[in-house]
Amino acid sequence: MGNVFGKLFRISTWGESHGAAVGVVIDGCPPRLPITAAEIQAELDRRRPGQSDIVTPRKEADQVEILSGVFEGVTTGTPISMVVRNGDQRPGAYDEMKDKFRPSHADFTYQTKYGIRDHRGGGRSSARETIGRVAAGAIAKKLLATALPAGTVEMCAYITRVHDIAVPADALTAFPTIEAIEATPVRCPDPATAAAMIERIKAVRADGDSVGGVIECRVRGLPAGLGEPVFDRLEADLAKAMLSLPATKGFEVGSGFGGTLQKGSEHNDTFENRDGAVRTSSNRSGGVQGGISNGEELVFRVAFKPTATILQPQATVGKDGQPTELMGRGRHDPCVVPRAVPIVEAMTALVLVDHCMRQNAQSATFNP
Amino acid sequence: MGNVFGKLFRISTWGESHGAAVGVVIDGCPPRLPITAAEIQAELDRRRPGQSDIVTPRKEADQVEILSGVFEGVTTGTPISMVVRNGDQRPGAYDEMKDKFRPSHADFTYQTKYGIRDHRGGGRSSARETIGRVAAGAIAKKLLATALPAGTVEMCAYITRVHDIAVPADALTAFPTIEAIEATPVRCPDPATAAAMIERIKAVRADGDSVGGVIECRVRGLPAGLGEPVFDRLEADLAKAMLSLPATKGFEVGSGFGGTLQKGSEHNDTFENRDGAVRTSSNRSGGVQGGISNGEELVFRVAFKPTATILQPQATVGKDGQPTELMGRGRHDPCVVPRAVPIVEAMTALVLVDHCMRQNAQSATFNP
Amino acid sequence: MGNVFGKLFRISTWGESHGAAVGVVIDGCPPRLPITAAEIQAELDRRRPGQSDIVTPRKEADQVEILSGVFEGVTTGTPISMVVRNGDQRPGAYDEMKDKFRPSHADFTYQTKYGIRDHRGGGRSSARETIGRVAAGAIAKKLLATALPAGTVEMCAYITRVHDIAVPADALTAFPTIEAIEATPVRCPDPATAAAMIERIKAVRADGDSVGGVIECRVRGLPAGLGEPVFDRLEADLAKAMLSLPATKGFEVGSGFGGTLQKGSEHNDTFENRDGAVRTSSNRSGGVQGGISNGEELVFRVAFKPTATILQPQATVGKDGQPTELMGRGRHDPCVVPRAVPIVEAMTALVLVDHCMRQNAQSATFNP
Amino acid sequence: MGNVFGKLFRISTWGESHGAAVGVVIDGCPPRLPITAAEIQAELDRRRPGQSDIVTPRKEADQVEILSGVFEGVTTGTPISMVVRNGDQRPGAYDEMKDKFRPSHADFTYQTKYGIRDHRGGGRSSARETIGRVAAGAIAKKLLATALPAGTVEMCAYITRVHDIAVPADALTAFPTIEAIEATPVRCPDPATAAAMIERIKAVRADGDSVGGVIECRVRGLPAGLGEPVFDRLEADLAKAMLSLPATKGFEVGSGFGGTLQKGSEHNDTFENRDGAVRTSSNRSGGVQGGISNGEELVFRVAFKPTATILQPQATVGKDGQPTELMGRGRHDPCVVPRAVPIVEAMTALVLVDHCMRQNAQSATFNP
Repeated sequence: MGNVFGKLFRISTWGESHGAAVGVVIDGCPPRLPITAAEIQAELDRRRPGQSDIVTPRKEADQVEILSGVFEGVTTGTPISMVVRNGDQRPGAYDEMKDKFRPSHADFTYQTKYGIRDHRGGGRSSARETIGRVAAGAIAKKLLATALPAGTVEMCAYITRVHDIAVPADALTAFPTIEAIEATPVRCPDPATAAAMIERIKAVRADGDSVGGVIECRVRGLPAGLGEPVFDRLEADLAKAMLSLPATKGFEVGSGFGGTLQKGSEHNDTFENRDGAVRTSSNRSGGVQGGISNGEELVFRVAFKPTATILQPQATVGKDGQPTELMGRGRHDPCVVPRAVPIVEAMTALVLVDHCMRQNAQSATFNP
Repeated sequence: MGNVFGKLFRISTWGESHGAAVGVVIDGCPPRLPITAAEIQAELDRRRPGQSDIVTPRKEADQVEILSGVFEGVTTGTPISMVVRNGDQRPGAYDEMKDKFRPSHADFTYQTKYGIRDHRGGGRSSARETIGRVAAGAIAKKLLATALPAGTVEMCAYITRVHDIAVPADALTAFPTIEAIEATPVRCPDPATAAAMIERIKAVRADGDSVGGVIECRVRGLPAGLGEPVFDRLEADLAKAMLSLPATKGFEVGSGFGGTLQKGSEHNDTFENRDGAVRTSSNRSGGVQGGISNGEELVFRVAFKPTATILQPQATVGKDGQPTELMGRGRHDPCVVPRAVPIVEAMTALVLVDHCMRQNAQSATFNP
Repeated sequence: MGNVFGKLFRISTWGESHGAAVGVVIDGCPPRLPITAAEIQAELDRRRPGQSDIVTPRKEADQVEILSGVFEGVTTGTPISMVVRNGDQRPGAYDEMKDKFRPSHADFTYQTKYGIRDHRGGGRSSARETIGRVAAGAIAKKLLATALPAGTVEMCAYITRVHDIAVPADALTAFPTIEAIEATPVRCPDPATAAAMIERIKAVRADGDSVGGVIECRVRGLPAGLGEPVFDRLEADLAKAMLSLPATKGFEVGSGFGGTLQKGSEHNDTFENRDGAVRTSSNRSGGVQGGISNGEELVFRVAFKPTATILQPQATVGKDGQPTELMGRGRHDPCVVPRAVPIVEAMTALVLVDHCMRQNAQSATFNP
Repeated sequence: MGNVFGKLFRISTWGESHGAAVGVVIDGCPPRLPITAAEIQAELDRRRPGQSDIVTPRKEADQVEILSGVFEGVTTGTPISMVVRNGDQRPGAYDEMKDKFRPSHADFTYQTKYGIRDHRGGGRSSARETIGRVAAGAIAKKLLATALPAGTVEMCAYITRVHDIAVPADALTAFPTIEAIEATPVRCPDPATAAAMIERIKAVRADGDSVGGVIECRVRGLPAGLGEPVFDRLEADLAKAMLSLPATKGFEVGSGFGGTLQKGSEHNDTFENRDGAVRTSSNRSGGVQGGISNGEELVFRVAFKPTATILQPQATVGKDGQPTELMGRGRHDPCVVPRAVPIVEAMTALVLVDHCMRQNAQSATFNP
């Protein structure tokens, strides 16, 4: 019942890990936006399994097909349906999961809620579900880049921590480039930290274990005025978007949890006139004040827990309620965070475009 | 545009800090629920200003009037409209704010987004807006307690940290009682920590400064099966609810950000058969797996930044864009966190009731 | 659960006929629209009971109070809460209805659905509920008149039939003026027909009986492009809006049911170039094609059944399921149609403003 | 932007007449409902072109493929994605339409609203769009039949008028059987009238002309209590559903427009105790009172205009605004009404299931 996201730029995702296909329908994309399957594919390729030696080896081309809503290279304003056929299914690898609940997976809760579950690869609870998000997000990103003054909005997400290996304080004050982020498969723009992260991921994989980490996302060039208080604050919708991702356990914007260690006199972002514009001299607010973007950099972080699937024996119970042991199988990511980077970007783009449309609905309708 | 919350138990809040009144309309409350104004008032009194010597001295009775939807002591299934008249308005105290943007407040963003703002006391961006949430939450709490097996669901929220004063690890393993929480005005159930927190709040107030902190919320007795993946995961809707509150900067569920420091083998909650039920032997998941409650305790935390209003001179700019200085005035909370406790509970109850109704819509419609 | 209307210009109405008050909250009204209580009152006065000798004599000032969202004479972009206190309640007049179901009223269905009902004057099912719609509609009308090129959009609704007394064919080809419509209490702009309608209404009232009729609504000056196929076609949303009104039994747009008697070659509206614009030479489409306004006059009609309350003895059953007789009491309209005219206009304005905002959300976000 | 329908049983349709495919995603279908592609196909076959000699000869197998949400023959509670590949495309037949606006079609309005349109076969405005509705409706029908007491709910739709050929009064007092309806390709259960209708359709086709008509839909066995006043009345949502269909111009429930010719004393449905149940002695209400089903037969009618495409020369203008002439081409239905019967049923089932779920959400959550 909760597979629709967005109010005006609205997506419906569908599909299971080992079903026939996964996909998405977008309703509300403005017409005449030039878009190609290649642009969408580029984002899917960043999310794709098998892209490096620190992610799952499942072989999926993840080739997107656009079935509607695009005509002669541009959107028509009608629903855009996109589908990716599943390829390298090995449902047999999941036979054991049919009757045993994998610890910290969604097996037990899906079974309890629905009274049934597609146990193959986690079914709907698989991160494979995010393909539809990334495909839709690719269009949102294009729209975001095009809808506002050219060259203004820039977005990036990257890893700041894997397990206990973190980017040193102040190493990333400059806005990271896509090139720096994509320079290594771990998507951390600080080269030394990236190397250590990769090493750690390989080490835990060798142990059949897993790790999690933190992704930071930054957006610059956003206009002030996005966000719809009191409930649909920009950070509230971002928090929901991020916590809707598999394996996420936390969200913070600007100073976040750390900001609670400061006093108001230290934490407040004072205003100043910079180059004729009202700006803040610091950015502990993270680009939002009162739920509305203030024109400063939007900055938030998302916590991802260690991958639940580990290749070690674990105690669990079966569908019959009896204690048993489960030996992890199947192909999996020892650390989901590198592949989550484009997903975080996609969700961010979806939220921002939706809020742009909501703000425009008001400001374009009446502007005395 | 974002003043409606919930899908089935849906609330619309309205009102400004220094306008005529604030209030809420609830659409979707099931009929025949016994409810009295006194029950709602009890929750509002916990949120009320002037309740202790560590909160704002603004004098407001915050007396609720039920205007519709309740007949002969029970709900009728029609919209419940509740209103609280504003009393101790001193708009004159805010004259300076008319033309100056208070740092880290919503003055600048509201002015930019809407081209106008009710500057008196922050208008709609004031935490006074949360009165409607608490009134609606009181009904949601009653429903939550009554709708499920009697005595099953228990909820509590409390402060675990103010500035750098935190409850010691393991001090709160037992589920805190309401009495312990309400024993002090700071709403921390650990007496020694509470005393230190109160002292700190008084100290920063004496300096004209402010502090923030962290609230933890726990719910036990929830059935497994609440949450609607993939977007409306239980924790995603909770994250949105919490980040929609004034002054919040972060949300985490279960192990949260700290969980990223563990390996999968350490972090996974293994299943066991306890007293004939499928239970987890630990609760790093925080009561949700795959976006759905698993029957364990729901545990999450919310970060509140230090109050933006401080009684110290701050640099800022005016509506004319020119640099100026602002001396904080008006009545304010040196720390908003104690009064935020009932608000966090209210939002939690609203999310949980909405999800109960969503789950029931499915399970009661077809159950072979 | 169904008391919220609109997607972007969203209203929540509340209140019962003999409760404390009725009202509405609007979320999504653009900021800086000048609006006064007097402008809203003017529309409420057109809906008000006791306004003439052919409507119910219930005495209600229906005085509106704006509680939020308007500051210094203009909207602020925050929710607008409006309340009308109920005055001339005589709940005692409804004691008999407590235990007996009035034929063709909502007594039985409310009792069955909710297991309870406020029997006084029909409670929520009373047409008194429409006060909130008319108050919100007044703001929508103002916005509609102001948002688009000045003087362009004109709307009118009027009665074309009462019982079997109908406006002669072709009597209303010209767009009726408000003055002509409001010239008589029956709100039919054709004077001779109006006189006959009034006579009929008085005659049935003398018999303790009632009649229904048909309202036509026309809007000119609408831009082409409003409407969101495939489900939210302009006429679909209008149909829903109209059938959501008490006592309505039918809706038709353009040629309506009568159009089914023509062949395609007779019914089609051919296009022509008129004064440099693409126009249709006829308007059997009623201003909508494919669910989208085409710039021609929007024309639709709504059927209202005869008032269910009649002052004659009627057979019915009681809450105990036993047959009994009911003698109609209370104050009522022998014909609801005259007072329904401003309500139809209000709902039309709400739908049109919502669709303007939806269209603007798209066209203002991307326009290459 | 308006391609999502339903609140709890929510469908997103997509696809253009001559694009790659058309389809639908259902979100909110309860789990464990047995469903096969064959059951869906059976409904699609009733809608399919080429099924008889009075409909369009376009050859489409309209073969449905279920891509997700069904596992081992039952629904899983996750989104159900269904796709139908387009086959017999002849886009070349529409070259002329690229630059000329077909009278009473959506060409002009789509071009004006979106600034672009897929002109091939009407693109999204084609009735081919309704395939997704029928596929989703098949599941809703199955659910409706299964969710309530077995054998209780029965639904049928049929044609009561084509052009001026109408079923005689009182010919259809008995609830028509599916067999009687499907006995002729025109789907009118009165054999003599059906024969005359078929003759008329063939006659207008021979002239290159078209006709419209009226469909009546009846549902018996519905429980009392469905419908969510004040805005989401059952008849309001049905009206929206019907007016969202291509070529519809009117909707009426129960006595409809004709009911306005009666006095209240004639029109009221008095209550009686029949076999121990509260029933009405007549059914001018059409099964709904105050927006809520009353347990009597739900009866409503929908007006369809004559097909806009005719094989005769018509005056029009081109995209350049210049007058021109258009000679209709392509394959088309001389009368859309027979194929619209399963579509009306599908939309009815979707509305009813959604309202069942909404009612259950309330009644199952709290029932003292």
